[in-house]
Amino acid sequence: MRADRIVLDRRPRGVPVPGDFRWESRDLPTVAPGQVQLETLYLSVDPYMRGRMSERESYAAPYALGDVIAGSVLARVVATRSAQRAEGDLVLASYGWQTASVVDAADTRALPAGADPPVRALSVLGSTGLTAYLGMGAVGRPGAGETVVVSGAAGAVGLVAGQVARIQGARAVGITGSAAKCEVLTRQARYASAVNYRMDDFAEQLRAACPHGVDVYFDNVGGAVSDAVLSLINQGARIVVCGQISQNHVDTPVNRVPIPTVLLNHGALMQGFMVMRYADRYEEARRDLRAWLASGELWYRETIIDGFERTVDAFLQLFTGGNLGKMLVRVAG
Amino acid sequence: MRADRIVLDRRPRGVPVPGDFRWESRDLPTVAPGQVQLETLYLSVDPYMRGRMSERESYAAPYALGDVIAGSVLARVVATRSAQRAEGDLVLASYGWQTASVVDAADTRALPAGADPPVRALSVLGSTGLTAYLGMGAVGRPGAGETVVVSGAAGAVGLVAGQVARIQGARAVGITGSAAKCEVLTRQARYASAVNYRMDDFAEQLRAACPHGVDVYFDNVGGAVSDAVLSLINQGARIVVCGQISQNHVDTPVNRVPIPTVLLNHGALMQGFMVMRYADRYEEARRDLRAWLASGELWYRETIIDGFERTVDAFLQLFTGGNLGKMLVRVAG
Repeated sequence: MRADRIVLDRRPRGVPVPGDFRWESRDLPTVAPGQVQLETLYLSVDPYMRGRMSERESYAAPYALGDVIAGSVLARVVATRSAQRAEGDLVLASYGWQTASVVDAADTRALPAGADPPVRALSVLGSTGLTAYLGMGAVGRPGAGETVVVSGAAGAVGLVAGQVARIQGARAVGITGSAAKCEVLTRQARYASAVNYRMDDFAEQLRAACPHGVDVYFDNVGGAVSDAVLSLINQGARIVVCGQISQNHVDTPVNRVPIPTVLLNHGALMQGFMVMRYADRYEEARRDLRAWLASGELWYRETIIDGFERTVDAFLQLFTGGNLGKMLVRVAG
Repeated sequence: MRADRIVLDRRPRGVPVPGDFRWESRDLPTVAPGQVQLETLYLSVDPYMRGRMSERESYAAPYALGDVIAGSVLARVVATRSAQRAEGDLVLASYGWQTASVVDAADTRALPAGADPPVRALSVLGSTGLTAYLGMGAVGRPGAGETVVVSGAAGAVGLVAGQVARIQGARAVGITGSAAKCEVLTRQARYASAVNYRMDDFAEQLRAACPHGVDVYFDNVGGAVSDAVLSLINQGARIVVCGQISQNHVDTPVNRVPIPTVLLNHGALMQGFMVMRYADRYEEARRDLRAWLASGELWYRETIIDGFERTVDAFLQLFTGGNLGKMLVRVAG
């Protein structure tokens, strides 16, 4: 069987462009004992992948040139030589931007138990939802009535993070990049307030939206957006650094705000958040998220782009705000 | 009785100069019921005072123009109308740069119990020692064999911080500003290694001193010194921001290292440390520090400048590295 895949052809300089990637077609190997052949149903495109396309150190190893862009996929078993997996099973794997693959059954995970739509295992019940829940719950720890600002608030993680804060009794203020997304944040996701960072008077609008300052900042964006938030933090503030999507393309990013001084003057904490460190709390997180989805307290959407050939386009849209919630590519099924 | 005092005459621009201060002489008020008259024996000059001389927000309120420079003093009761305090008692107060003062007895504290030299209540058993012990113990939390870097390592806090790390089984590397202080750090304070940040090849020397990277960074200095340390941090590093003395004079300090990205890539934490938040652990801290001093595990020195008229000079020397350990001014006694 033939399978298509997308590999890194050169390291992006600044914002990635389609020419940084190369399309390949190849015959799949035969299925060896203990292996399964998988057909990709949905694949994930994520901002962290931009980091792995650079050589500089990150929490994940850089992709090598010629490597497939690795990442999470939802796939169906189409052939099996493993007692663990039956034909037709839906599984999660991490072989990335490929239409199909042959992998060890041990490198696949069963979908979380429950009647959830399978695609949620790549979104609100997957890494991004867990990141929002645990980053907010374990590091942000908002108290009742506290002000929680989320940047990238309409993105995969941000859309959940503000709602976790709201459910925990805090006042969530979202920062996003369009009036339409602000509307979604306040109406559907029930953020208390939402501010468009593209407006000239963004800093003033943010200040007005946070009359009692900022107790928790859940940051997916960095850069000038963070400068504005940091100027409003309260004593004892907690800053969860979950992503820095605005800084991915910058060769030598510089903070205009003197972060150590700001943290010192406010007795504040800034924590780089890695969800893998909290694996012992995944089940608790999924249980709560699932219950909140069922009760309607938590509202969620994916943005699904149709067709494997649009994978690179979907990825690039992450950097122009093209997604609401988790960005996924539907490949088949 | 006449008393002298030093007040803020204008807000310093950049590095403070003597002309920023004004000397005043006045008659002390009479001692009212519940009050004591105090004669200053030793007064404290501290880097944080520079912060309070600016109008910009800090963890302590700015001094007003014409205000006495407030800070800790060790004083003797020379007259009393309070049953709490007897003539001749040694007490701690916070009236700052004055040769004598009349204060409410309730605003004085008895010296910590024990046979310690009284001046230690302003140094290793005072705020700076507590800051080192609790900043390292509660935030840095070095594990056995971990590498702990301390900037400003020969200063009031740093001199203790590295030794706390060493006593807890970690490998302490000190950064300071002269070969002589490096020698003191490794010989007397038994830091594993010490590096002079004024050397051209400082970054290379630091890297060589930390072959396994940096697990804990206890920062008193900030700026370029921190840039060098941050380039060496390990996964899960803890950064205690205790001071930023190199940045006090800079109007718009800028970080050359993208701190949120560095924290994110290493799952690292940066915490602005305020010792007052850990007041419930002061007794534990003093008990350990006192025991370590007695056993010789902890080595300590003050730098004592003689004469109230040299107070401003002593303060300014903090910014040129003139002190080893806590800088104090001996006023009387």
